Amino acid sequence: MDTVSYTLSQITAELGGAWRGSDVSVSAVKPLADASAAHISFLANPKYKADVTESAAGAVIVSPQTADEFAGRNLIVAQDPYLYFAKVARLFSPLEKASGLIHPTAVVEESATVPAGCEIGAHAYIGADTVLGQGCRILAGAVIEHNCTLGNEVVIHPNAVICHGCTLGNRVEIHSGAVIGADGFGLAFAGDSWFKIPQTGAVTLGDDVEIGSNSNIDRGAMSDTVVGNGTKIDNQVQIGHNCKIGSHTVIAAKTGISGSVTVGSYCIIGGGVGTVGHIEIADKTTIGGGSNITHSIKESGQHIAGPYPMQTHKEWARNAVHIRRLSEINQRIKQLEKALEPKPADNQ
Amino acid sequence: MDTVSYTLSQITAELGGAWRGSDVSVSAVKPLADASAAHISFLANPKYKADVTESAAGAVIVSPQTADEFAGRNLIVAQDPYLYFAKVARLFSPLEKASGLIHPTAVVEESATVPAGCEIGAHAYIGADTVLGQGCRILAGAVIEHNCTLGNEVVIHPNAVICHGCTLGNRVEIHSGAVIGADGFGLAFAGDSWFKIPQTGAVTLGDDVEIGSNSNIDRGAMSDTVVGNGTKIDNQVQIGHNCKIGSHTVIAAKTGISGSVTVGSYCIIGGGVGTVGHIEIADKTTIGGGSNITHSIKESGQHIAGPYPMQTHKEWARNAVHIRRLSEINQRIKQLEKALEPKPADNQ
Amino acid sequence: MDTVSYTLSQITAELGGAWRGSDVSVSAVKPLADASAAHISFLANPKYKADVTESAAGAVIVSPQTADEFAGRNLIVAQDPYLYFAKVARLFSPLEKASGLIHPTAVVEESATVPAGCEIGAHAYIGADTVLGQGCRILAGAVIEHNCTLGNEVVIHPNAVICHGCTLGNRVEIHSGAVIGADGFGLAFAGDSWFKIPQTGAVTLGDDVEIGSNSNIDRGAMSDTVVGNGTKIDNQVQIGHNCKIGSHTVIAAKTGISGSVTVGSYCIIGGGVGTVGHIEIADKTTIGGGSNITHSIKESGQHIAGPYPMQTHKEWARNAVHIRRLSEINQRIKQLEKALEPKPADNQ
Repeated sequence: MDTVSYTLSQITAELGGAWRGSDVSVSAVKPLADASAAHISFLANPKYKADVTESAAGAVIVSPQTADEFAGRNLIVAQDPYLYFAKVARLFSPLEKASGLIHPTAVVEESATVPAGCEIGAHAYIGADTVLGQGCRILAGAVIEHNCTLGNEVVIHPNAVICHGCTLGNRVEIHSGAVIGADGFGLAFAGDSWFKIPQTGAVTLGDDVEIGSNSNIDRGAMSDTVVGNGTKIDNQVQIGHNCKIGSHTVIAAKTGISGSVTVGSYCIIGGGVGTVGHIEIADKTTIGGGSNITHSIKESGQHIAGPYPMQTHKEWARNAVHIRRLSEINQRIKQLEKALEPKPADNQ
Repeated sequence: MDTVSYTLSQITAELGGAWRGSDVSVSAVKPLADASAAHISFLANPKYKADVTESAAGAVIVSPQTADEFAGRNLIVAQDPYLYFAKVARLFSPLEKASGLIHPTAVVEESATVPAGCEIGAHAYIGADTVLGQGCRILAGAVIEHNCTLGNEVVIHPNAVICHGCTLGNRVEIHSGAVIGADGFGLAFAGDSWFKIPQTGAVTLGDDVEIGSNSNIDRGAMSDTVVGNGTKIDNQVQIGHNCKIGSHTVIAAKTGISGSVTVGSYCIIGGGVGTVGHIEIADKTTIGGGSNITHSIKESGQHIAGPYPMQTHKEWARNAVHIRRLSEINQRIKQLEKALEPKPADNQ
Repeated sequence: MDTVSYTLSQITAELGGAWRGSDVSVSAVKPLADASAAHISFLANPKYKADVTESAAGAVIVSPQTADEFAGRNLIVAQDPYLYFAKVARLFSPLEKASGLIHPTAVVEESATVPAGCEIGAHAYIGADTVLGQGCRILAGAVIEHNCTLGNEVVIHPNAVICHGCTLGNRVEIHSGAVIGADGFGLAFAGDSWFKIPQTGAVTLGDDVEIGSNSNIDRGAMSDTVVGNGTKIDNQVQIGHNCKIGSHTVIAAKTGISGSVTVGSYCIIGGGVGTVGHIEIADKTTIGGGSNITHSIKESGQHIAGPYPMQTHKEWARNAVHIRRLSEINQRIKQLEKALEPKPADNQ
C-alpha cells in the first residue's frame, strides 16, 4: 500500500549512518531472500553474509564490521543494522495520524473531553468525564468507559475496551479485543459460596506502552495495577490485579502474570510463561518461553529456563512415568552408594 | 470515586461483628501499609500482627483470637476478617444499579423482551426472541443474539457476546470480550478434509456465575454446556463443549478445560491448568496452577500438584536432557542393585 | 429450535448409505444414551455396542462391520458412522443463509463493495475499499477495516475484527472476538527503549478456514501470515507473525505458534501447545496437548508427546526437587557403575 520511495542519501540524512555505492531509490524493506532492485534489505547477523552476496536487493543495511566485504554493493552502514532496518521500515510506513473526524455513529458523552483533531471511529463510545489528549485515535467499536484519562496520540484499535477510571500515558497503543481494567479475580469464601471482593483500583499505563490483541490488564483491588513506560505486551497476555510491571519490559504472547506480582524493568519474558502470585521478578530478568515461575527472582540479570525438551510420544511413554518416581530413584542410589562404601573390614 | 463514609457502629449494624475503641468514621478499605486515619484495614493472617501496630489505619478488622492484643486501637472484631473486609469494601462500592435507560443507539429487536428498568448501553444489540429479566445491565457494544434467556440483574460488560439460545441465571456477570456459546470444536475427518459437526446445543449458566474477560464457554454439540450456581471463572479461560462444571467452583485465569469434562462443585482450579477431554474431576478438588490433568480424579478433596519447579537456564541445560533418559537411568540402577545383591557364595 | 424431520430413506437418498428396518422419521441427532424414538444416534466405536442395544433411539447409524449384530433395530449402514452422523446433524441444522439485509445501524464506507444478498448486522463496520464476495454474513458489531478482500459466503461473528488489508477465502468463518491481522510483535532494542518494527504484511486465509473465538492471527512483518485451505483453528489460539500454516491442519484451543513457524498440512495439534519461533513442523505431525515444541520436526507423520503426567501434590513435593538434580543423579550412577566394574585384581 505504500508507494513512497527514498534514496540512500535521503534515508541517511533522516536516520544517520553512511551510504556507499550508488544513491539508488528504494520503496520498501524486504528480507535478503525476497528483495529486488526496488527494495532495501539488511544483514543483522554476520552469519548470513552469503545471503547478501546472493540477494537482488537494491541496497543493504550492514554494520561497519562487515561493510568492507560487500564492495560493489549499494550499502547503508549503521552501527545496528536491525534497529536501522526498523527505522527505515517506519519511514516507509509512517504512523497514521488522527483524521480529526468524529464519526456520526460514535457516541461521546456530553461530559467527556475530546480535543479537536482526535479521530473517533464508527460506533466507538467515550464515557462520561473521560478526557482524551491531543491526536488520539479511537477506532471503530472501541469502548472507553467513564472517568478515564488518556494522554496524547493514544490509539485504541477496534472493539478494544478501556474500563472506567483507567489512566493511559502518551502514545499508548491498545490492540483489538484487549481489555484494560476488567475486574481482578478476588473472592472471599463465605462458608458455602464465594463473596466477590470489589475491585476498586484501576489501571495506570505509562507512556509508550503497547498492549496486544485480546490481552487483559486487570484493575487493582484497592490500588492501581501499573505498567511502566515503554513496556510492550504481546497478544493474549493476562496481567492480574495489583501487579506492578516496570519500564521497557517485553512480555510475549500467552504469558500470565498472577496477581500482586512485581516485575522489574528491562525484563524479557517469553511466551506462555506462568507465575504464582505475590512474587518479585528483578530487573533485566530473562525468562524462557513456557517457564513456570514458582518463586521470586531477586537477583537481577538472570536467565530462567524454558520448558522441558520435547519428546516423541514413544520417549514420553517410556520416561514420563519415572518423573513420579524420582524420589524413589534417589533413595535407591543412596542405598547403592552406602553398600559400596569401603567398610572397616576392607581396611584390615 | 467513592465518598461515602461509615462509622464503625454503622458498619457492624449492617454486617454484624462488634466494634471496640472509638466509633470513628472511615471512607475506604486499604491494606495495613497504605491505610491512613480515614481508612479501615484488616488482619487476615495473624502472621502479620506487627503490621497492625505500625499501621496508621483509623480502624482494623481483626479476629476474636487476636483482638485483645490490639488494646487502644479502633477495631471491628469478626470471625473471618477477610470475608468481613470484602463485605465492607462492597458497602463502600455498592453494585451499580441499572439506569433504566435504553441508549438511542442500542438495537433491540422487536420480538425481544426488555423489562422496564433494564439498562441497554450505546450500540448494544438484543436479538430476536431474547428475554431479559428485571434490572439487567447490557453495556456498550455488548451483543446478545436471538433466543437467549437472561435472569434478573444480569450484567454484560462492553463488547461481550452471548450467542443464540443461551440461558443465564440471576445475577450472572459476563466481563468484556468474553464469548458465551461460540461453536464447540467438533470435526469429522472426511478423507481429505474436515467436516464440521454442527454444534446444536447451547450454554446454560446458573445463578451468580461470573465469567472473566476474554473467556470462552463453548456451546454443546448436542446438549448444553453447563456451569453451576455460584461458579466464578477468571479471564482467558476456555471451557470446551459439553462440559458440566459444578457449583461454587473457582477457575483461575488461562485455564483450559477440554471438551466433555465434568468438574465437580467447590473445586479450586489454579491458573494455566490444562486437561484432556472426557474426564471427571471430583468435588472439592484443588489443582495447582500450571498442572496438566491427564486422567480423571475420582476421589474428592485431593490436592493435585502444580508445574515443575523453575530453574535457571544453566540448571535447565544440565538437567533437562536427562528427562528423556529417565527410563535408561532406572534400568542402570536396577543392574547396579542386581550386581550388589548378596550372592549364594557370600552366605557360606 | 429445529423442527425439520427426515425419514431414513430421505436421509440415505441425500447422504448415501443404506437403511434397514422401518423407514422411521427422526428429527434430531442424539448420543445413544440420550436418544428417544424421535432421534437418530450413531455407533462410532464398536467398543460401545452394548449401548446400541440399550438405546431408545428411533434409529442408529452403524458400520457395515457391526450392522448384522443389530437385527430388529432401524439402522443406517454407512462406512464411517461418525462422519455420517456429522452430515445428518448438518441436515437437521443447515447453514444459515445471508438474509440479504444491511441493518440501518451498520456502517459501510462508500468505497466498499458489498454485493446484493450479503447480510450486514447491527453496528457492523465495513471499511473503505474492502470487497465482500457473494452471500457474506457480517454479524452485529463485527469490524472489517479498509482494503480487505473476502470470498463468498464468509461469516464474521459478532464483535470479531478483521484488520486492514487482509484476504479471506471462500466460506471462511471467524468466530466472535477473534482478531485477524493485528500487529505482529516485532521490536528492535534501541539502547534504552524498544523501537516498534512496522508490521507491513497482512494475513491471508484460504478457503474453508475456521478461526475460533478470541483467537489471533497476527499480520506479517514484511509479507503475509498465511493459513491454508480447510485448516480449522479453535478458540484462544495465537498464530504469530509470518507463520505459514498448511492446509487441512487442526489446532486445538489455547495453542500458541510463535512467529515465523512453518506448520505442514494435515497436522493435528492439541490444545495448550507452545512452540519456539522460526521452526518447521512437517506434514501430518500429531502433537499432544500441552507439549512444548522446542525444535523443528522434519520427518512427517510423527507423534509428539504431551505434558508430564499429573501427580498429587504429595508426589510432586517429593519428586519435583529431583528434576533439578538429574544431572547429579546421572553422575552418581556413573560412579557406582565404575565402582562395580570388574577390576584386574578380581580376575586373578
